[in-house]
Amino acid sequence: MKNTSLAIGIDVGGTNTKYGIVNHRGDILEEGEMKTAEFPTIESFVDGLYDHLKSILDKYNKDCNIKGIGIGAPNGNHFTGCIENATNLHWKGIVPIAKLVGEKFKLPCVLNNDAKAAALGELNFGAAKGMKDFIMITLGTGVGSGIVVNGGLLYGDKGNAGELGHTIIRPGGRLHWSTGLKGTLESYCSATGIAITAVEMKKDSKEDTLLKNYDDKDITSKVVYECATKGDALAKKVYEFTGQILGEALSNFVMFSSPEAIILFGGVIQAGDLLMAPTKKAMEEHLLITFKGQVQLLFSELRFADAAILGASSLVWG
Amino acid sequence: MKNTSLAIGIDVGGTNTKYGIVNHRGDILEEGEMKTAEFPTIESFVDGLYDHLKSILDKYNKDCNIKGIGIGAPNGNHFTGCIENATNLHWKGIVPIAKLVGEKFKLPCVLNNDAKAAALGELNFGAAKGMKDFIMITLGTGVGSGIVVNGGLLYGDKGNAGELGHTIIRPGGRLHWSTGLKGTLESYCSATGIAITAVEMKKDSKEDTLLKNYDDKDITSKVVYECATKGDALAKKVYEFTGQILGEALSNFVMFSSPEAIILFGGVIQAGDLLMAPTKKAMEEHLLITFKGQVQLLFSELRFADAAILGASSLVWG
Repeated sequence: MKNTSLAIGIDVGGTNTKYGIVNHRGDILEEGEMKTAEFPTIESFVDGLYDHLKSILDKYNKDCNIKGIGIGAPNGNHFTGCIENATNLHWKGIVPIAKLVGEKFKLPCVLNNDAKAAALGELNFGAAKGMKDFIMITLGTGVGSGIVVNGGLLYGDKGNAGELGHTIIRPGGRLHWSTGLKGTLESYCSATGIAITAVEMKKDSKEDTLLKNYDDKDITSKVVYECATKGDALAKKVYEFTGQILGEALSNFVMFSSPEAIILFGGVIQAGDLLMAPTKKAMEEHLLITFKGQVQLLFSELRFADAAILGASSLVWG
Repeated sequence: MKNTSLAIGIDVGGTNTKYGIVNHRGDILEEGEMKTAEFPTIESFVDGLYDHLKSILDKYNKDCNIKGIGIGAPNGNHFTGCIENATNLHWKGIVPIAKLVGEKFKLPCVLNNDAKAAALGELNFGAAKGMKDFIMITLGTGVGSGIVVNGGLLYGDKGNAGELGHTIIRPGGRLHWSTGLKGTLESYCSATGIAITAVEMKKDSKEDTLLKNYDDKDITSKVVYECATKGDALAKKVYEFTGQILGEALSNFVMFSSPEAIILFGGVIQAGDLLMAPTKKAMEEHLLITFKGQVQLLFSELRFADAAILGASSLVWG
């Protein structure tokens, strides 16, 4: 008798693809990863995935009911099951990944974009448990988002709702490196944006700063974080600037969907209160009085390493 | 036998309150209005409303099934049935209008804010018929919005979703006359904002302009419109500036909820293509490529005089 239901979660990233088998409580029973870029075609990638997962499937198939496979991927469209023109994957154009994986594994397969998968992970297993309206903002190399309204993910007319990283917050401002848009949230508040800000501030500053020990090309958001934790004033200013912009953008999002909480996720949140304090201050300052003090600003409760797999597996439970 | 179902729609405005009785097809069978400010208390207002509507109720009650009363009002909260701290009504604080009207008329009574009511009107009887995801932007004295997702109004956690007029689009920009927020959409793209822009541009301009025939205090959005239709270059510039800002804000909204259409409504849209052309251009320019050319930008199809009553009555049908 197969009493236990399990789901496979697969997170496709530009560098690594992580996979795991997860139960209803969010326990990852087994996990692993492979290099995405080692597979020149999507077909070879699906074959590689099958080879990696086969022993796990064989092991659990005997006693458990494997319900399906959830895939989180950049530009993953839930409606079409295709990865559509992802700029940070090497498979170009429209990639019907859900169909190919479903056929290979002979299991139902559901695709979503990585930020929406993370939001579902948070809803099922994290800080958003029991919430009906919240916004997940993923602050990594880029800025993504998953918006939950009325207890479910917001897709919009064509499945593309929640591209909050590309909303304008500094009109006419910094040119984005790949979209060509100016002054968008991602240009400033992604890890990439933070590094750009640090380089700009270093150049303009006459202050003594630890950032001057680094060549521009070696300044990453991680370097900024390390300098700030050592008390470097300029590095702290980078976070104040970032938090100011993020907070203003969040206030706009609050006035759109009136969420119970905004949950921040991704590598950038390792900065902790360096980022949270100025973000919260700016958000509250820019809210209409109705919303002031009403919206929780939280960090994700998912362990960073697990979140991608948990999020992807959540797609199976819905 | 009572075959015909009807709904009462009441639109409470700062100056006038309009009411009407409406059938399922959106035909207004009878309508009327009264001065809101003539009633110092909400209780006297409800009594006055009853006096005005009594003959209509008596006439239709015999042969028709009057399903209920829908009220659209500024700061009307659907969840609580109260008008909450409306700045442009003279009843202060929390006003339990739905309860009072329901008791007086002995009919079910539903409240919503005026922009959400307008969105429902558009969904049931206007340009949004059959749409599941659209955004209604009301451009009047203020800027309001009603957001429809998955075929229903978006309320959010506490019923306050859709305060898009108060989102920031020019950080640190024009101070709003009542909210104290800077650079919000309403500060620029409401009728009030358009008049302020015209006064500012007139002051800064060395051009000859018809606007110089008016004292600052007499410049309204209507005056700007009239000057623009006479070919006045500066008045046209006012619309270009307004459309630029509106278009940028709309692009942000599109990237949030991925609507099928954005529908513009309210006195300001009488400017027609003077406003539409620059708005559409700016919106498209600021959209992520995924969304370019995908979202219809439309004017409301509801007759302006009818829209408030139709919208309010729509609340009854849901």
